Amino acid sequence: MKIIIKKDLLNEKLNKVSKAISTKNLVPALAGIKFDLKEEGLTLTASDNDITIQTFIPKNEDMQIEEEGSIVIQGRYILDIVKKIPDETINLEVFDENKINISTKNSEYNLNGIDIRDYPTVKIEENKNPIIINNKDLKKIVNQTSFATSTDESRPQLTGINFKIIGNELECNATDAYRLARKTLYLEKTSKENFDIIIPSKNIVELTRIIDDDSKIELHIFSNKIIFKTENLIFQSRLINGSYPNTANLLPKESILKITVDINDLYNVIDRVSILTSDKEKNIVTLETQDNILVMHSSSAEIGHIEEKMNIKKNNQEDIKISFSSKYMMEALKTFEGEEATITFVGEINPIIIQDNIEENLIQLVLPIRTY
Amino acid sequence: MKIIIKKDLLNEKLNKVSKAISTKNLVPALAGIKFDLKEEGLTLTASDNDITIQTFIPKNEDMQIEEEGSIVIQGRYILDIVKKIPDETINLEVFDENKINISTKNSEYNLNGIDIRDYPTVKIEENKNPIIINNKDLKKIVNQTSFATSTDESRPQLTGINFKIIGNELECNATDAYRLARKTLYLEKTSKENFDIIIPSKNIVELTRIIDDDSKIELHIFSNKIIFKTENLIFQSRLINGSYPNTANLLPKESILKITVDINDLYNVIDRVSILTSDKEKNIVTLETQDNILVMHSSSAEIGHIEEKMNIKKNNQEDIKISFSSKYMMEALKTFEGEEATITFVGEINPIIIQDNIEENLIQLVLPIRTY
Repeated sequence: MKIIIKKDLLNEKLNKVSKAISTKNLVPALAGIKFDLKEEGLTLTASDNDITIQTFIPKNEDMQIEEEGSIVIQGRYILDIVKKIPDETINLEVFDENKINISTKNSEYNLNGIDIRDYPTVKIEENKNPIIINNKDLKKIVNQTSFATSTDESRPQLTGINFKIIGNELECNATDAYRLARKTLYLEKTSKENFDIIIPSKNIVELTRIIDDDSKIELHIFSNKIIFKTENLIFQSRLINGSYPNTANLLPKESILKITVDINDLYNVIDRVSILTSDKEKNIVTLETQDNILVMHSSSAEIGHIEEKMNIKKNNQEDIKISFSSKYMMEALKTFEGEEATITFVGEINPIIIQDNIEENLIQLVLPIRTY
Repeated sequence: MKIIIKKDLLNEKLNKVSKAISTKNLVPALAGIKFDLKEEGLTLTASDNDITIQTFIPKNEDMQIEEEGSIVIQGRYILDIVKKIPDETINLEVFDENKINISTKNSEYNLNGIDIRDYPTVKIEENKNPIIINNKDLKKIVNQTSFATSTDESRPQLTGINFKIIGNELECNATDAYRLARKTLYLEKTSKENFDIIIPSKNIVELTRIIDDDSKIELHIFSNKIIFKTENLIFQSRLINGSYPNTANLLPKESILKITVDINDLYNVIDRVSILTSDKEKNIVTLETQDNILVMHSSSAEIGHIEEKMNIKKNNQEDIKISFSSKYMMEALKTFEGEEATITFVGEINPIIIQDNIEENLIQLVLPIRTY
């Protein structure tokens, strides 16, 4: 294998696949990045068995393919070398079967490679009719839901984001049993098959970090894995087994009170009122309406008491007093792009629903906390 | 106690003293910040017994002193409240002896204070003839030496920076037994007394973070503590007991070879050559001169071999081959502001001396490592 390639190009592509390099030493070859050089271009692959990332650099004027071949190179060293080399162009050559030589004007880097036969076979499959969405929409979905997933491995289903596809509707749910984030998206093309899968949250968050904003992405769904394809990038993740809890019945159909608030103001009020709760796990604050005034307060017997007031609009004369986690409410408020939110109350012990006035397909739900 | 004060002013001063708030719970009052309000102004004090920081805000148009008094307020809460309050002005009032009320237009913060009698007495002393240097010079000294101190508490003397004052000369030394950083400064005013003290490195680093560039600072030295005074700020640190090792004999008087190199280039060459050593404790690289070429290389049996070349100037025909820690050499090179450094070699097993061509009062020394 022999290639001459622009440093910046190789650096960018290595960084994308590097997120999948295994840091566990169970299969030593997985600490490497696989280089496959063919006439058509260079394919880079990294995998930790949980996710696999593959990028393809099609033949172009920034590379010169001198000799086809394959090799696995220690991920951390090749990343560091390509990042730090000051030259514009890099010569990468395999000699003596598994030795790698990288040379520039003043330097010689010789690395021991890993035999390609030691690298596990990575099988990238395709569906005939993948789901297609905009990268931008996928990033937004993940941003607006992933924070609500659980990190508790004792209920693995809740550590993932649920993707439910029926016809032309994609519904995404995330919940840790104390709150729920739901976003619905309408697909350009109706799906022939229905899906109800759970994608590990940290994997899909990783994906959204390496894809750009302007392309579209294909979702190829299989029984135990999902493959995302966009612009010469393939990202494969395992799926979480089991069925996702039914969240539909959580959303109330009736309400006793709806209030309209400035999202930014409410966020800041909760942020300040929760100062006294910062070392407590539950960060409980209490919201009370008094006519068109919202009073937010928190107290701690040892430390003290904080109270703030702000103006709100109400849909009727009812008043409510309800307590909840400031952290959960602030994370929910952060997902809205609009200026004003409507908060729906069903009762002191019923879920609180937050929606903004410009994006009706996004619903945030926070459970109240009983304080008595 | 009652005061109306501009939020930004109080925020800035609280942040300065906050570095001394104790995070250990041995003396609960030390988790607080002491407020002393007198006719002349507001004094804030924090201490963790290792360092004490005191700022004084003299009476000015940004504060209104309504009632003198003293109180100790939980450090983390008062900091967070003052940081997050959106109003320009804060009303702070003590009531019922130890209760604190902070109020703004829409908010009320009530905190339980700590009785002033529970706060340890902080005794700030003064010398009649303190040492005086520019804040800027002190910052530079600390920057150029502190990195070379040890973090190993089994030899506590080496965890500090040695300040040696004789006449009008201040010599600062830092060493961890593998390298030495020495900076000499000439004082504007000759000191009547000689000093040879060891200041804990992390304390003086903390000091340099909270003083500004443009003032002068007074050093009041006592047998077991040092007090720095600058612009309404007092910073007290304990001193480390014991005598500092004699470092004078480390500096060689003769040499076999001096080379002149571009500091930036050499730094980058060592950075790249040491890539293979990144997971090793000693980060050994080898420097070899071959006429006017410097060859830097490193190797690891399992991983590979790297070699880089660069041009140098030499003072004679001698050549040298010597190995050292890349980390130590890079940290030493970073302290120089000039473009070119002179590196002096005495022999393969003798200290390497680095100096730049514009600041002769700064000497960096790195010990070689035997590789055979």
